Amino acid sequence: MCKSFKAIDGLESKGLRVRGSATRELANSAMGRENLIPLWFGEPDVPTPDFICEAAANSMRQGETFYAEGLGKPFLRSSIAGYQSGLYQNAIDMERVAVTLSGGNALNLAFQLLLNDGDRVVTTVPAFPNLLAIPSLQSAVVEAVNLDFGERGWTLDIQKFLDMAKGAKAVLLNSPGNPTGWTLNVDDQRKILEEFRKTGTWLIADEVYNRIYYKGDAAPSFLSLAEAEDRVIAVNSFSKAWAMTGWRIGWMTMPPSLLLTAEKLMEYSVACVPVFAQRAAQVAIEQGEDFISKSIKRYETGLDVVERRISAHSNISFKRPEAAFYAYFQLDGVVDTMAMAKRIIDETGVGLAPGTAFDPQDKNSFRLCFAQSEDRLHNAFDRLDPFLKNL
Amino acid sequence: MCKSFKAIDGLESKGLRVRGSATRELANSAMGRENLIPLWFGEPDVPTPDFICEAAANSMRQGETFYAEGLGKPFLRSSIAGYQSGLYQNAIDMERVAVTLSGGNALNLAFQLLLNDGDRVVTTVPAFPNLLAIPSLQSAVVEAVNLDFGERGWTLDIQKFLDMAKGAKAVLLNSPGNPTGWTLNVDDQRKILEEFRKTGTWLIADEVYNRIYYKGDAAPSFLSLAEAEDRVIAVNSFSKAWAMTGWRIGWMTMPPSLLLTAEKLMEYSVACVPVFAQRAAQVAIEQGEDFISKSIKRYETGLDVVERRISAHSNISFKRPEAAFYAYFQLDGVVDTMAMAKRIIDETGVGLAPGTAFDPQDKNSFRLCFAQSEDRLHNAFDRLDPFLKNL
Repeated sequence: MCKSFKAIDGLESKGLRVRGSATRELANSAMGRENLIPLWFGEPDVPTPDFICEAAANSMRQGETFYAEGLGKPFLRSSIAGYQSGLYQNAIDMERVAVTLSGGNALNLAFQLLLNDGDRVVTTVPAFPNLLAIPSLQSAVVEAVNLDFGERGWTLDIQKFLDMAKGAKAVLLNSPGNPTGWTLNVDDQRKILEEFRKTGTWLIADEVYNRIYYKGDAAPSFLSLAEAEDRVIAVNSFSKAWAMTGWRIGWMTMPPSLLLTAEKLMEYSVACVPVFAQRAAQVAIEQGEDFISKSIKRYETGLDVVERRISAHSNISFKRPEAAFYAYFQLDGVVDTMAMAKRIIDETGVGLAPGTAFDPQDKNSFRLCFAQSEDRLHNAFDRLDPFLKNL
Repeated sequence: MCKSFKAIDGLESKGLRVRGSATRELANSAMGRENLIPLWFGEPDVPTPDFICEAAANSMRQGETFYAEGLGKPFLRSSIAGYQSGLYQNAIDMERVAVTLSGGNALNLAFQLLLNDGDRVVTTVPAFPNLLAIPSLQSAVVEAVNLDFGERGWTLDIQKFLDMAKGAKAVLLNSPGNPTGWTLNVDDQRKILEEFRKTGTWLIADEVYNRIYYKGDAAPSFLSLAEAEDRVIAVNSFSKAWAMTGWRIGWMTMPPSLLLTAEKLMEYSVACVPVFAQRAAQVAIEQGEDFISKSIKRYETGLDVVERRISAHSNISFKRPEAAFYAYFQLDGVVDTMAMAKRIIDETGVGLAPGTAFDPQDKNSFRLCFAQSEDRLHNAFDRLDPFLKNL
């Protein structure tokens, strides 16, 4: 074989074409840098609580290491159903619930359930890059409506969105949203749902941040409004609320008429979710409310720090979000967020995710995850302050 | 909303269209039946060894519950590289290895790496149904060459296969194969690889049964022959050899030029594999050889029982396989394997997977998993004997 030959030469595929994560690219480029304060990824800075880990360890010890039901163990589906019915004040039967291997896995399954090649999917930007990439990899035509930034922070022009959604097979709404923290209110959710009941449009609601909410127990959810056979698939995850990012366990709530197809597709995706992870997840739901309350207080303190420190810089545009754990802000005069994010790492050692990760058109936005200790956040701003002042 | 309305009404999607698993359908139909001996699924009957579980429990306890590298932790990629280099007597660098969330996840990623919509994929039948469904869900045109059954058991006419593979973007070869135990020899592997070097065809080698082999340490692997930049992606899993079916952890070995694309696609699939599962997998590789040897002896005893008991029935065609843990046999005069499999459950309480699960054209084959105790297998045949004699 010729030594310069690369297997990839001449290869054309959907996988090669899809856009990569700019945040991952940035993080890889800074790999090995000493004394870095990385605030680019979206995860709590504390490990999973012990009582959750112990449930998994006990399950393994008892030999729960075999294949399991594709839809998840009935004990966990039932726990999730009860949890959601209480939280959303709307009866949600376990026949609508499937356990998945992460929220991302649930999104992949949701689009497989709904799409043919070439179907149109409408969503919003700025967005977590996976939300655009997953339907693209499934050969959908993905279009995005821009969220607006103004005095009220990030908002969506609902009429503009509904106009764009006309003729789409499905829409994907991530509220509370990553990276902006943008959160739909109940009235707008009702308006969207009622319109889609007329048009037959499917709604995929990515609600993985719904417990990271600073105005109440949970952000408004489409599951409070939807009836069982509404064309709504809600995606959620144990990652954020219970600090279980590394576990890869989530769930989806769907019309009962889709359930058997979801079971079939799960088999072809990853077959099933480890039973010991399902035991851990059940304990998280049943005993984790105290952990969530404490986490929210901590994140709120982090947000206070970030808001105060950002307010010292007149060249930054930022509005306090009501959900999620990100500050997504604009820096005046920047024209290339990736180049600037690299410069910020080089000159300050603080890792921020570049806006271009969340919107290819973005020129001057940055995402900072404030699920961190006050000290760490202060340290980051102590480094950023002189840099930002001299920009 | 009209009460009879189903969300699924009028929906058309790839997910709805793809064929489901007939084995799963059968197992669901028998759910709740008492005194069943289920021999339809493909997994060892023993739980994961304690020393592997303890490695995971310790990892959790130490707080390894965060997101990890998309390609897997370097410690595990390096262990896998060393393991494969030794087993296959061919240097395989860790820059070719990605850890995945099960062998099935690896197959999904492999096809995403290679395929455009409408590309042709060639494989063999009878086959594990996922092998046909996964590329179909990615909009490939999937064609299958029939394995032949004769005096030498199951074989593949290599020339027929190579002719069919002309013009295909990729071929998928599952050797040792599920359900037949069919195993390619080194000479045929070399012939296939040399032909594909000329044609540029990609080869996906599903080798998840390569350690369940009764003629040596491991079945012949394409990784013994392939150079780094050959167009070969080998898929493997911790499920079968180390009794870790419920963990969902596997890996893929690919040309280094594909690695960054694999990392990108992993992010959009399930992001990463739990670190605690990766610790368990490393211990499995490093301390699991004794477990594998003992398992193979046990499966061989199971195969002896099955072969002896089957030989009492002149209406069964069966040849002892040299790999995997399935007896795949034909029952004379049967014309509908699903109907017959249901009748066997009803009348004997023994669960066999119907041939139609592995080949839609099959009329009279059944798969029995012999990774079971001798007693259980004898019990199953004590029930089957009178039924089979009176057929």
